[in-house]
Amino acid sequence: MNRIGLCGYGTVGQSLLKLIKNTDNTIPSNISDKFIVSMIADRSIAKKKYDKSITVTDNVMDLAKSEEIDIIVELIGGTDVAYDVVITAIKNQKHIITANKALIAEFGDEIFELAAKNNVFVGFEASVAGAIPIINTLTNNFANEQIKSIIGIINGTCNFILEQMSSSNLSFNDALQKAKQLGYAEADPSFDINGTDAAHKISILASIAYKIKSPLKNVTIEGIEKITSMDIKYSRELGYMIKHVGITNISDQGIECRTHPVLVSSNNILSNVNGVMNAVMLTGDNFGTSMLYGHGAGGDATASAVLADIAQAINIPDKLKITNNHRDSLSLNSLDIIDNDCLENPYYLRIYAEDVSGVMAEITNILAKEKISIEAVTQHEPADTDSLIPIVMITDTVNTKSIDNVIKKIEKLPHVKDDVFKIRVLKINE
Amino acid sequence: MNRIGLCGYGTVGQSLLKLIKNTDNTIPSNISDKFIVSMIADRSIAKKKYDKSITVTDNVMDLAKSEEIDIIVELIGGTDVAYDVVITAIKNQKHIITANKALIAEFGDEIFELAAKNNVFVGFEASVAGAIPIINTLTNNFANEQIKSIIGIINGTCNFILEQMSSSNLSFNDALQKAKQLGYAEADPSFDINGTDAAHKISILASIAYKIKSPLKNVTIEGIEKITSMDIKYSRELGYMIKHVGITNISDQGIECRTHPVLVSSNNILSNVNGVMNAVMLTGDNFGTSMLYGHGAGGDATASAVLADIAQAINIPDKLKITNNHRDSLSLNSLDIIDNDCLENPYYLRIYAEDVSGVMAEITNILAKEKISIEAVTQHEPADTDSLIPIVMITDTVNTKSIDNVIKKIEKLPHVKDDVFKIRVLKINE
Repeated sequence: MNRIGLCGYGTVGQSLLKLIKNTDNTIPSNISDKFIVSMIADRSIAKKKYDKSITVTDNVMDLAKSEEIDIIVELIGGTDVAYDVVITAIKNQKHIITANKALIAEFGDEIFELAAKNNVFVGFEASVAGAIPIINTLTNNFANEQIKSIIGIINGTCNFILEQMSSSNLSFNDALQKAKQLGYAEADPSFDINGTDAAHKISILASIAYKIKSPLKNVTIEGIEKITSMDIKYSRELGYMIKHVGITNISDQGIECRTHPVLVSSNNILSNVNGVMNAVMLTGDNFGTSMLYGHGAGGDATASAVLADIAQAINIPDKLKITNNHRDSLSLNSLDIIDNDCLENPYYLRIYAEDVSGVMAEITNILAKEKISIEAVTQHEPADTDSLIPIVMITDTVNTKSIDNVIKKIEKLPHVKDDVFKIRVLKINE
Repeated sequence: MNRIGLCGYGTVGQSLLKLIKNTDNTIPSNISDKFIVSMIADRSIAKKKYDKSITVTDNVMDLAKSEEIDIIVELIGGTDVAYDVVITAIKNQKHIITANKALIAEFGDEIFELAAKNNVFVGFEASVAGAIPIINTLTNNFANEQIKSIIGIINGTCNFILEQMSSSNLSFNDALQKAKQLGYAEADPSFDINGTDAAHKISILASIAYKIKSPLKNVTIEGIEKITSMDIKYSRELGYMIKHVGITNISDQGIECRTHPVLVSSNNILSNVNGVMNAVMLTGDNFGTSMLYGHGAGGDATASAVLADIAQAINIPDKLKITNNHRDSLSLNSLDIIDNDCLENPYYLRIYAEDVSGVMAEITNILAKEKISIEAVTQHEPADTDSLIPIVMITDTVNTKSIDNVIKKIEKLPHVKDDVFKIRVLKINE
């Protein structure tokens, strides 16, 4: 009998207990041994409903040290208490299942190493893209593949806001308010909309795909705060949807790892990932291109992934194979994370200029001098009563340093007003 | 050391050997024991190139009986020789990896039972949707879920032909010719275009999802042969794409299992699955809706799935857990497969009528009498010089028996010419 200690009894924890109860008849057929949630720790457990047959405590460290617990399910979140619980539990030879992307992205290297020393399993399927089995697919099905690239829509809040701005023509702020009302954005949504959350997730995926230590500190991170309804509209006219993605890929030059908005061609299946849905597109040497799509958040979806990890923790023969391998291989790849300045992409540029003759020529001359081709350009009517005209263009592939250099020059033109806004365009084979 | 015997050395077999050779450095980290392809059997091996260090034979039964082989990889195809090889190999205590959907769909019940008796593993990830890890996802990640429905674009040939008819305005025959030229359709493409291949695949998925014996004999099967460019055009006008899908779902009434063309709303992500790509959409109680997308065929993609199964066969602790469970649970669900007559769907109807007044009224009166609502209707200009006008309508949800009854009545109308053609419309929550 495997005894599970549940740390954190919020939405996901409650969904997990419900799921275990509901599927009681079917679980035994695919899990090799019995298990029970025998203890729950939550600092406000006194105020919550729980099955009185389960031992409860308001001190999570009780569980991390308890001799009555074999597997810790960490659903506390954050990296303070959760870190202490996980480290202590591992030192006490407990297997760990966590949905905590910040913890794995920031402290995964230390956690995996300690887990290997203590012969315990660490499952973190729920930490990236909720119910989408991306961790299992990378560590099992595609384990023998050279993964060339991963592109993921991995933040449901961003995806919902961008889609609302597109489908309902809402401003960024109105779309954010709607997301809050529907429970798709937290009271303080900063980590979702500024890219931090997606950076945690793409770091975890890069670490598995390329067998490297967590690249979090070197990830290029941009959010969606500066995107306007105009950008969405102009992009659509040019045949693109704006999506916030995490990208990691490998080449002889090194490993790219970044998260930012991109223009995705309407022909690309990623452009059809709407609402709060997540999707992760993988390209590999043999399997070609695959995409996994599903709910990235929510109590039930996350609990489903946690339960799949519990099954793994119980089923895996010596219970440490995957963890060990992950840890052992963390130094396999010695390629560096490519610096932001060197990342290459086509760009969408949105420029506001006074409606005077010659301004388009001045802008295109700057680009021509820097040998940057223009793939598409549109000049629009002024958006409102002010007389500035929006000029939108898609450039050829260019590195960050060059585009920033060109933007500075364009911004210095006398008839160009406001900052020039740039968004990367997803390359077809990225 | 696990010794593998490769039966059938065609495209997939050759890709597999190349893949194993290329990934030689990375495989050991995620497979718990060493393995080697030690024998190849192929009836025309004499004409093929192979690594001379590998023992070869033109008699596949040599491998099935050999004491020098632990795992048989069956890539022969069909159900004659492949059946004999697999049954003999299992009786000789060899694990089986197969990409053969016909074999698993038609003889899976017998194979799994025999495998359980002989303590061997049967891996068949490659039999459905190539490199898409749908079998692993169902048997592991979503094992503790009640799967409500599966909708899959699981025949790349059909999907390519339908997309060509749509994007390039080709006739069915021209699109089929193009598919043959590009190697996406076989010389005799019957099994792909008449739905047999998709029926095999959806039977396998239904069997796993609902823990039932293979429902193949009760699957409703329709192909794409009768779909015209006109149907594609009219559907698109109404906001739909035509896709060939396999569908299985469960309700209190029983289990549905069927494969046929459907109209898919352009808002549904399935409508964006183009070319020869496959996609399987799953709905479950907790994870919500997920979709797995990728290459459904091709030597490298299939070999990738075969290698993932080899890893499973070697890694799985007692090497029979999954097989055993699958077998043990085959009688778990006693629900019947719902008869075709009782399947309920909205329908697309295409009717050719003479251009005389009152014909639309006659048709809509028949539908009204049978209490079938019309969701949309369009009347078109005659397609060419003949004077028949095409009338296209989308009905409310109705069962097969009722729609066939109505169609018979419409066909008897004096001004209606040709047969009435029907295509199901995919329900949103199907």
